Amino acid sequence: MERSRAEPVAVSGVRADQREQATAGPRPNALDRWLFGQLTSRLDPSRVRVVLWDEPEPETTDGLPVVVRMGDRKALRRVILHPNLYFGDLYSSGRITVKGDLLTAVSEGYRYTAQKPSLIEKFLRGRKLPTPDLADSRRNIHHHYDLGNDFYELWLDREALQYTCAYYADPAMTIEQAQQAKMHHVCRKMRLKADETVAEAGSGWGGFAIFMAKNYGAKVRSFNISKQQVAYAREWAKREQVDDKVEFVEDDFRNIAGKYDVFVSIGMLEHAGAGNYKDLGSLIDRVITPNGRGLIHSIGRDRPEPLNAWINKRIFPGAYPPTLREMMDIFEANGLSVLDAENIRLHYAETLRAWLARFEENVDTVRTMFDEAFVRAWRLYLVGSIGAFLAGKLQLFQVLYARSGANDIPWTRAHIYEHGD
Amino acid sequence: MERSRAEPVAVSGVRADQREQATAGPRPNALDRWLFGQLTSRLDPSRVRVVLWDEPEPETTDGLPVVVRMGDRKALRRVILHPNLYFGDLYSSGRITVKGDLLTAVSEGYRYTAQKPSLIEKFLRGRKLPTPDLADSRRNIHHHYDLGNDFYELWLDREALQYTCAYYADPAMTIEQAQQAKMHHVCRKMRLKADETVAEAGSGWGGFAIFMAKNYGAKVRSFNISKQQVAYAREWAKREQVDDKVEFVEDDFRNIAGKYDVFVSIGMLEHAGAGNYKDLGSLIDRVITPNGRGLIHSIGRDRPEPLNAWINKRIFPGAYPPTLREMMDIFEANGLSVLDAENIRLHYAETLRAWLARFEENVDTVRTMFDEAFVRAWRLYLVGSIGAFLAGKLQLFQVLYARSGANDIPWTRAHIYEHGD
Repeated sequence: MERSRAEPVAVSGVRADQREQATAGPRPNALDRWLFGQLTSRLDPSRVRVVLWDEPEPETTDGLPVVVRMGDRKALRRVILHPNLYFGDLYSSGRITVKGDLLTAVSEGYRYTAQKPSLIEKFLRGRKLPTPDLADSRRNIHHHYDLGNDFYELWLDREALQYTCAYYADPAMTIEQAQQAKMHHVCRKMRLKADETVAEAGSGWGGFAIFMAKNYGAKVRSFNISKQQVAYAREWAKREQVDDKVEFVEDDFRNIAGKYDVFVSIGMLEHAGAGNYKDLGSLIDRVITPNGRGLIHSIGRDRPEPLNAWINKRIFPGAYPPTLREMMDIFEANGLSVLDAENIRLHYAETLRAWLARFEENVDTVRTMFDEAFVRAWRLYLVGSIGAFLAGKLQLFQVLYARSGANDIPWTRAHIYEHGD
Repeated sequence: MERSRAEPVAVSGVRADQREQATAGPRPNALDRWLFGQLTSRLDPSRVRVVLWDEPEPETTDGLPVVVRMGDRKALRRVILHPNLYFGDLYSSGRITVKGDLLTAVSEGYRYTAQKPSLIEKFLRGRKLPTPDLADSRRNIHHHYDLGNDFYELWLDREALQYTCAYYADPAMTIEQAQQAKMHHVCRKMRLKADETVAEAGSGWGGFAIFMAKNYGAKVRSFNISKQQVAYAREWAKREQVDDKVEFVEDDFRNIAGKYDVFVSIGMLEHAGAGNYKDLGSLIDRVITPNGRGLIHSIGRDRPEPLNAWINKRIFPGAYPPTLREMMDIFEANGLSVLDAENIRLHYAETLRAWLARFEENVDTVRTMFDEAFVRAWRLYLVGSIGAFLAGKLQLFQVLYARSGANDIPWTRAHIYEHGD
């Protein structure tokens, strides 16, 4: 089934912004007006209209233009100074509000920041960045992996708890079906067979390891440093009666020993650090059998760029999406050969839409578990990620590899597509 | 259809070596014997046995071991000094002869040269390389692209004269079917549609340009600097009655002007020079439409390495097979996004086997057109290339790209595999 998307999707699930307008501090002065002019001169006024804290609500037709309100002078100055960093915090704390489709606002924001910085930005960027308000930070986001299994269960797929890009073999799939399809897609690419041994780097909650054991009869050792996730995964494997086939190891995957037919990693490379790819490849070389092979599934880039500053600060500290060129550090120096690289970035936009819809369905529960600032931050993170994948700022690469010169490799890729699911 | 090859194929088409043993010069002395020991100590004696010019024919069983005879002292010394360069010349001129399967000898040779150089090689390699005998050179190979269409028609596929890797969608295909399948594979990956405009860099004899016009209704401008090939291609397009749809331009593709839906190149990148990839990408960026896309099909490597010295000297001067990392120079700096990269190196081994079989069927004609040294050189080139693809010393990459952020891209790759041919 083929499908292409010329237009960004509307995120209908996002609720209208219900916040009261924050009109803190003095009325805009001449400098504020001039800065405001700098900001708005590069936005498409038919799509996004920015207003200052003393301005009345503008008229809109069918939700356009989306209205972005600067709540106070500091908010305006910070968002001009470093939009990638401060928009997120100011939106989360409610000092910037958005009326209308958040994805439209975010997409215009990407267009804005992708342009050359204005003179004022160049000038301001030369100055030391102000430390974000402690109040902003505290009210904001708890650390990503301390959020508890309950939270993720609210909005991830209910069958395999996959916190990585799904594969919509058919665009009409539910998120549950698409995550199952993703795992089949990966196993088929690797031609995983019964009784083969698998090392997995990064277990998440154990969904993929259990899937490989249940559906392909594989024997899996899966590595994870999160105590909480490992406990969850072990319990789950027991319930699924595959605890004789799946072992969850609470350890860094760099401590892997033994030999495996397959080394696979889904959504771990983003956290490994580009400087460590060569060592990762050397580890793969050390632990796979002569006919060993595997797949690395990772968010990536078309060209090198640091992660969005706000995402880096608040959501995924230290994460880095590599380019294909950077990923080659894993393979090139370590006697590995790339057989197949697939870019399925639009599937991640789709995955995120499904997550966002579930998130909004359960937003009252989330608010009770955390607070409104968390809700706003998480919404922005999900919507912002949809925008990034749709705009091609982020990619999703699946790279299949084997040993260089190994000839027990698939003759073509047709076998991946011979199944209905 | 899936197929894997754990074992190198035997090249049954290669004729037994009929040459008289060349016993030139003095009998082996102590130094010769010692050098000989250096050479043979790293070969598997059950597969390849090297003998000196004064030794009798060794016993063989079922063609093993293959017997490689050094015809004289100079041949021995040169092949130790720089086997990659001199084996080819010495084999071509008959001063080294091979009894038994040439592919076995070549594969053992790859294993030999992949090992660490011995002390004697390190010592000898510090010295200035002797210029190859003029006699050797002259008796040897005419320049690759001056060989005439008649010669290539003897052994390439008879339908599309493709001098690039075929795609054996089904391993039972003939070379004609596999070349048609290759061209379909490329067009399907690119989702080529009727009336779309295509720029092709490197026409060969025009087979692919004519194929795109006939089978997909595309309008093609194809660039080639070979006068002879362009004349051939124009004539052919006229015969096929697609000369209104295909234009062959006798010019460097770097002079392309205009806008095209597709920019495609099959087997040209190897000759472009790695330093020019960034400019190639910039040219692609300049000439494709906003929804433009294309495919680069090229011989490649798992890790950077210069081309085999003899191939570089005698067969493809200046050619360079890039790594995937090096190919990224085309895309990364130029706003292009890699959608799909496929490595089909085993299909090139199969393609070369088919070419070799045809070559051997027509070897008497080839000998009449050229001479015995040419026949031997060309045979070694074909067999050596089979060995290189089987050993994973060479790869074959097809890289599909579009503009970064363009969303009119295939939703999955299933559409490539929905056809019978």
